[in-house]
Amino acid sequence: METTSDVRPAPRVKRIYNFSPGPAMLPEPVLEQAQEDLWSLGDTGIGILEHSHRGAAFAAVLADAEARCRRLAGLGDEWAVLFLQGGATLQFAMVPMNFLSPGTTADYLHTGAWTRKAIAYARAYGDVHLAFDGESCAFDHVPEPAEIALSAEPVYAWYCSNNTIAGTQYPSPPEVAAPLICDASSDVFGRPLPVAGHAMVIAGAQKNLGPAGCTLVLARRDFLERARRDLPPILDYRQHDAKGSCLNTPPAFAIHVMGLVFRWLEEQGGLEAMARRNAAKAQLIYDAIDRSGGFYRAVARPGSRSSMNVTFRTPSADLDARFADEALAHDMSGLKGHRSVGGLRASIYNAFPPSGCRTLADFMDDFAARHG
Amino acid sequence: METTSDVRPAPRVKRIYNFSPGPAMLPEPVLEQAQEDLWSLGDTGIGILEHSHRGAAFAAVLADAEARCRRLAGLGDEWAVLFLQGGATLQFAMVPMNFLSPGTTADYLHTGAWTRKAIAYARAYGDVHLAFDGESCAFDHVPEPAEIALSAEPVYAWYCSNNTIAGTQYPSPPEVAAPLICDASSDVFGRPLPVAGHAMVIAGAQKNLGPAGCTLVLARRDFLERARRDLPPILDYRQHDAKGSCLNTPPAFAIHVMGLVFRWLEEQGGLEAMARRNAAKAQLIYDAIDRSGGFYRAVARPGSRSSMNVTFRTPSADLDARFADEALAHDMSGLKGHRSVGGLRASIYNAFPPSGCRTLADFMDDFAARHG
Repeated sequence: METTSDVRPAPRVKRIYNFSPGPAMLPEPVLEQAQEDLWSLGDTGIGILEHSHRGAAFAAVLADAEARCRRLAGLGDEWAVLFLQGGATLQFAMVPMNFLSPGTTADYLHTGAWTRKAIAYARAYGDVHLAFDGESCAFDHVPEPAEIALSAEPVYAWYCSNNTIAGTQYPSPPEVAAPLICDASSDVFGRPLPVAGHAMVIAGAQKNLGPAGCTLVLARRDFLERARRDLPPILDYRQHDAKGSCLNTPPAFAIHVMGLVFRWLEEQGGLEAMARRNAAKAQLIYDAIDRSGGFYRAVARPGSRSSMNVTFRTPSADLDARFADEALAHDMSGLKGHRSVGGLRASIYNAFPPSGCRTLADFMDDFAARHG
Repeated sequence: METTSDVRPAPRVKRIYNFSPGPAMLPEPVLEQAQEDLWSLGDTGIGILEHSHRGAAFAAVLADAEARCRRLAGLGDEWAVLFLQGGATLQFAMVPMNFLSPGTTADYLHTGAWTRKAIAYARAYGDVHLAFDGESCAFDHVPEPAEIALSAEPVYAWYCSNNTIAGTQYPSPPEVAAPLICDASSDVFGRPLPVAGHAMVIAGAQKNLGPAGCTLVLARRDFLERARRDLPPILDYRQHDAKGSCLNTPPAFAIHVMGLVFRWLEEQGGLEAMARRNAAKAQLIYDAIDRSGGFYRAVARPGSRSSMNVTFRTPSADLDARFADEALAHDMSGLKGHRSVGGLRASIYNAFPPSGCRTLADFMDDFAARHG
């Protein structure tokens, strides 16, 4: 047991630009605070991993994270804010388990691998209607309003606001006459969240919010009242809400880091400021694509281009691979496209620094000049 | 972005003796390593929270944690080792969801609040037979062999090896002719794990193994084959096994810390050594109870006394409260008994240092002398 104060020498490893699609970069001030809090949360003499989830210290952590989340998203008491486990994937099951039943229909706007998975889960619980099917266009865009055709009376309509693999993003939420559920795992809090039109917003933390192992679920409480009543409590949103995310031991460290990220977002100026910053970051890379004279080709259609995942290709798969390898040698990792589609992908979530986008754009210019 | 090496001054807060029933103390070398790895995992330049779960660095973390777990528990390839989310509570649902169905019966040995919860979950899926019911003895002991009465053909028999609230622990697993499932959340790897007689062992990490937010599930693969086939993949053990705990993004940080704890356990001499150490730690406190001339009263019957949670009472609830308050003033926190039963409880899991048990025993002597 360490009982004296001392100074810990910690020579720092140089960090690199990590373009990973998730888990992804976190703000360095957040990492530094988390390092301190592992040893002792404030002056409690007990680290954040070791505090009882029923004690005052963690209660304050949880309350702070929830309050900051509510401020950032502009959520009133009509919204539940839940910190759950199981990733967005468990939500793929929990949402239909709670709201869809045989003889009823849920509508899904199919825009890529993540909606495909959500759709497959939902089909076990009731009917699924594809209100948009992007398979035929290889998911190169999100639907225009005219491309959306709802079923007669959907219990909800599900969409994925940002698609990490194709690199597409809705410029604004689809306007549909149904309780709207958004899988915002890959762009949550990367721009203002227009919750007003939504029944639920779910987001795995590990791209824009914090560590893997926690899922943020925002849900209108009047919508949750529609859920079936015979589920095990751990799979019942209302039970989690009634217990303030402490139905069982919550993922305390992930929640704490998310709270630190929320604080960092507020310090950056909030979600409007993040939207401007993220758009500018992405534009640096899209500009490099557009000025390459056709050497680089963007995967997503204009109008659907993501500010979180910039997908592009060189003239060949060989050059794609060479690009990723050379970039890694320049301390830029994670640029290979998803294994299912190939190509290149720069994932530049909230915490990814603008300097990394400039560095990548410069490298793209240089690479095109050498290989174009 | 930090790009230069420097020395980080980190004056350390003095840590206290944390008797929390969970989340609970972790080994300090583990915390120190985790602090470093938040900034950069080895020399990768990317922190453990930020690595892709599909990359080589995290794959090595996961493989190391699994290998150490297998060595500690003596598990061959007939066992699946899974790192899941949702806590033991989700396991309360997943086990019957996978193995119990209407018309079949699962047996539960009811020894306290945690089996009560597990039983309530199971009843939604099929018949539950209480092969032992400790309600009548206020859970002051775990069943003797003669107290166990199985049903005719249980699909499994569930028990909780250590009961945190009453402070009881099975000296050895119950011997029953049924696939045995152990909720070992509060004593896993606190002593050798006799897996041979078991079909599954489940354990939330946050007491003996690491951070909240990860559940270790050990399961015989031939038993998993008995599970129903129509579950959503995220609730299907075989799917998690097929994907090596990466069916979706796993709780990477918690797994990493668990791997560091497994390494620490091996460095301490393994589970036999931990059993000796934990027994000696608990004995320090039980001795203080027994030599107090009746001032302190142990809650658990001899033969069922836990080496993880020592439960006891002073002559009055007022003195119990005073004890906890005075102990806190002496840098010993978390000694209040569970809110449902009152009294006092010293939770002294694997990472709790022997010096803390000596300090508590000395304090107990002093408190009894002053108030006896």
